[in-house]
Amino acid sequence: MTEVIQPAIETVTIDVMLSALADPVRLALVRAFDAAGDWTCGSDVLKDTGATIAKSTLSHHIKVLRDAGLIRTRVDGIRRLVILRYDDVEGRFPGLLAMLREAGPARPTVEPPAAAT
Amino acid sequence: MTEVIQPAIETVTIDVMLSALADPVRLALVRAFDAAGDWTCGSDVLKDTGATIAKSTLSHHIKVLRDAGLIRTRVDGIRRLVILRYDDVEGRFPGLLAMLREAGPARPTVEPPAAAT
Repeated sequence: MTEVIQPAIETVTIDVMLSALADPVRLALVRAFDAAGDWTCGSDVLKDTGATIAKSTLSHHIKVLRDAGLIRTRVDGIRRLVILRYDDVEGRFPGLLAMLREAGPARPTVEPPAAAT
Repeated sequence: MTEVIQPAIETVTIDVMLSALADPVRLALVRAFDAAGDWTCGSDVLKDTGATIAKSTLSHHIKVLRDAGLIRTRVDGIRRLVILRYDDVEGRFPGLLAMLREAGPARPTVEPPAAAT
């Protein structure tokens, strides 16, 4: 299995971390990866969140989360497995993940028809 | 003095809160309002942060922070005074402000000169 390159957690600034988390779908994914606590398939986790987004959009979100130091990704055949970098994130921004667990729901993650953005 | 309308903190979702904080200038403003601990002039606080943005951009950032439930604004003659809604934010998202205090610097808030083409 090949692990995708990810940033050293020390290079991640708080604004980059918050930008990654500010999207309702990405936030739902992070919460699901946090709850899983082990390597999981991004597509499977996405289904569990109830978000309805295209596969390409999921890939984009996964990349944003990885670039922000939140997750590791590894390629396993045709699957991409993901795990939350819990210890890294907790070490860099103590209390962030605990706060997210308690923060209540985000806005609905069902995308509106195109043209809204 | 007239206080500008702001949202009830219960209506603010975590993604809206994180979006407001994800910008380096807005994050610097929130930290400065947090440190001030009382009503302060947004323009004065901006100077202290070292960020170089237009007055209209400051007004936009202040509005985003207010709409996200982070600050109150009141109009005092030609000045706009701002205060962090510390208790409201702490009550809604416990640990968020403490995490931000400890989170280290964001990316620089001074915009680089445009690249020569």
